[in-house]
Amino acid sequence: MIFPTLDTPCVLVDLDVAEANIRKYQAYCDSNALKLRPHIKTHKLPSLAKYQVAQGAVGITCQKVSEAEAMVAEGGIEDVLITYNILGGTKTARLRALSEKVRLSVVADNEVVAEGLSRTFADAEAPLTVLVECNTGADRCGVPSPAAAAGLAGLIDRLPGLRFGGLMTFPPVGRMDEAETWLNEAKALIESEGLEVQVVSSGGSPDMWRAHGNGPVTEHRIGTYVYNDRSLVAHGACGWHDCALTVLATVVSVPSPHHAIVDAGSKVLTTDLFGQVGHGHVLGRDDLAIDQLSEEHGRIVADGPINLNVGERLRIVPNHACVVANMLDRVEGVRGADLTGPMPVAARGQVW
Amino acid sequence: MIFPTLDTPCVLVDLDVAEANIRKYQAYCDSNALKLRPHIKTHKLPSLAKYQVAQGAVGITCQKVSEAEAMVAEGGIEDVLITYNILGGTKTARLRALSEKVRLSVVADNEVVAEGLSRTFADAEAPLTVLVECNTGADRCGVPSPAAAAGLAGLIDRLPGLRFGGLMTFPPVGRMDEAETWLNEAKALIESEGLEVQVVSSGGSPDMWRAHGNGPVTEHRIGTYVYNDRSLVAHGACGWHDCALTVLATVVSVPSPHHAIVDAGSKVLTTDLFGQVGHGHVLGRDDLAIDQLSEEHGRIVADGPINLNVGERLRIVPNHACVVANMLDRVEGVRGADLTGPMPVAARGQVW
Repeated sequence: MIFPTLDTPCVLVDLDVAEANIRKYQAYCDSNALKLRPHIKTHKLPSLAKYQVAQGAVGITCQKVSEAEAMVAEGGIEDVLITYNILGGTKTARLRALSEKVRLSVVADNEVVAEGLSRTFADAEAPLTVLVECNTGADRCGVPSPAAAAGLAGLIDRLPGLRFGGLMTFPPVGRMDEAETWLNEAKALIESEGLEVQVVSSGGSPDMWRAHGNGPVTEHRIGTYVYNDRSLVAHGACGWHDCALTVLATVVSVPSPHHAIVDAGSKVLTTDLFGQVGHGHVLGRDDLAIDQLSEEHGRIVADGPINLNVGERLRIVPNHACVVANMLDRVEGVRGADLTGPMPVAARGQVW
Repeated sequence: MIFPTLDTPCVLVDLDVAEANIRKYQAYCDSNALKLRPHIKTHKLPSLAKYQVAQGAVGITCQKVSEAEAMVAEGGIEDVLITYNILGGTKTARLRALSEKVRLSVVADNEVVAEGLSRTFADAEAPLTVLVECNTGADRCGVPSPAAAAGLAGLIDRLPGLRFGGLMTFPPVGRMDEAETWLNEAKALIESEGLEVQVVSSGGSPDMWRAHGNGPVTEHRIGTYVYNDRSLVAHGACGWHDCALTVLATVVSVPSPHHAIVDAGSKVLTTDLFGQVGHGHVLGRDDLAIDQLSEEHGRIVADGPINLNVGERLRIVPNHACVVANMLDRVEGVRGADLTGPMPVAARGQVW
């Protein structure tokens, strides 16, 4: 039985694999003169954030103030970019407190957010660095055009308590060329108005091995590379042996010759398809598919004999590692066949 | 602004609405001589479980040992059915400890599970009641045929420490007639072998108002009815005003005339489609759709003008209330426009 002292379902993180993933991508960035700013939303663990920085990352990326607070609390992290429009007095007050502990930058894609940040930081000792978030095609957040980027950059520069820091984008997968053209145009416009564009921050894991040579981009943000997952295997970014996070599950029922039920359902694997068909990959069993999840049940099906027994354990690579790491209060550290102990997921479940 | 003292995203539970839902369905069961055994997986709150029992429920349903432990810890709950194949020494040991505090029954659909339970309960003071889980068409867990149900009932009856308690099924939505035929046949077979079938437990929210008159069924298990959700509105089981759980979100960006971004993403709404298109319903705005989620962003789109402003708050009815209640460590109690305070989600995030 795999890890008999652990109860299931649980989330395993192979630290040997995760650390190798971190070192490998840091080496890629180093050899391409690209700064690396990993996104900690994938692991939410201060220990891995510190490892990323120790290997050469220029700092970390967070998506929430609470994530940043959890990362900074233990020490060892000196530079944080929060890639989110932070809005509301409670959040900006926490942001200001955080800015006194760490080199901090945030983003904005509209003047309401910029003005809210300015109100909180107007009387701060040092200005808050704000990057303009740019919509280069993913149609999530971001100013709609290079001209709008230049306009917001000028506003940030004028607002008390803020400092314009550069441009940030989350480019559409497979279309980094478009993003490059967009960013070049915005950068030229902003520089023509006498402002410096110190940082151009891009990101994304599917295109991670094509991140070099993207024109104006100075730093790359990625999260999932630390654990990898089924979606990144499908994108060709890694292999199954590079997947550091797996869900350990037990077969609880084999009701027919072609289907079995495991105790990992949507409460641990999540229903995030992330472009895949089915809900994860059973390691070592390419003939199996996870075709249905309810909260505590995962249904495994096969065209041929299911060949599973009640009580047997399986390791499942999820479609999307980041969302799985968020489901339980702790993950179980392993190195190969050895358990290293539970790790509380410090930055999960926070509202702020 | 809606609930300005709360930060977003957060989960609101309107206790007036939840309590009315509980009373209304209890009245339906009472008037149809049907026992009600609500599933607490939806709310995971001891206070609401106690309210359900106080209104007349015969006991509660849980899906995990840890859920049952959390419900029993505060007192006020005396009868628990765990509708899951419980497997492994750690879990069965906790089950035995629990059986000393509360009237407990569980299910099994195979002999490995039954024998594991028997090993733990063989020397217990009182036998553990075990129901046979029946696959009446949903193809999740369950013995495959009435004959197999009778075979497993006989085994449970013979195994030390166990007592055969009856039949349990989670029938396929809209096909309760099929389930009835199946259960009648199994019941007759088991009784012909001299065993009593005390309980026949069925369940499911979509068919909740058709639960009466289902032949051999003695009790109905439902969970979602306490909060309701977008899927149950679509099934015609309730209206928007019956939805007790909503996600409070803030518009953080309006990047184009036809789309806006809120701070509720898959970490609170979840990616569970539950048969719906899109990721929830914005109350009061039938013209909006939530077409895309990433972890911290929800994208709202409209065919016409989006008509939303940065900083504005929205209440979103999720597709599936149960999985949303599991995402954060606490929900915020409200009664209409009044806040009643945060409630820790006692039974979330447990492995056992």
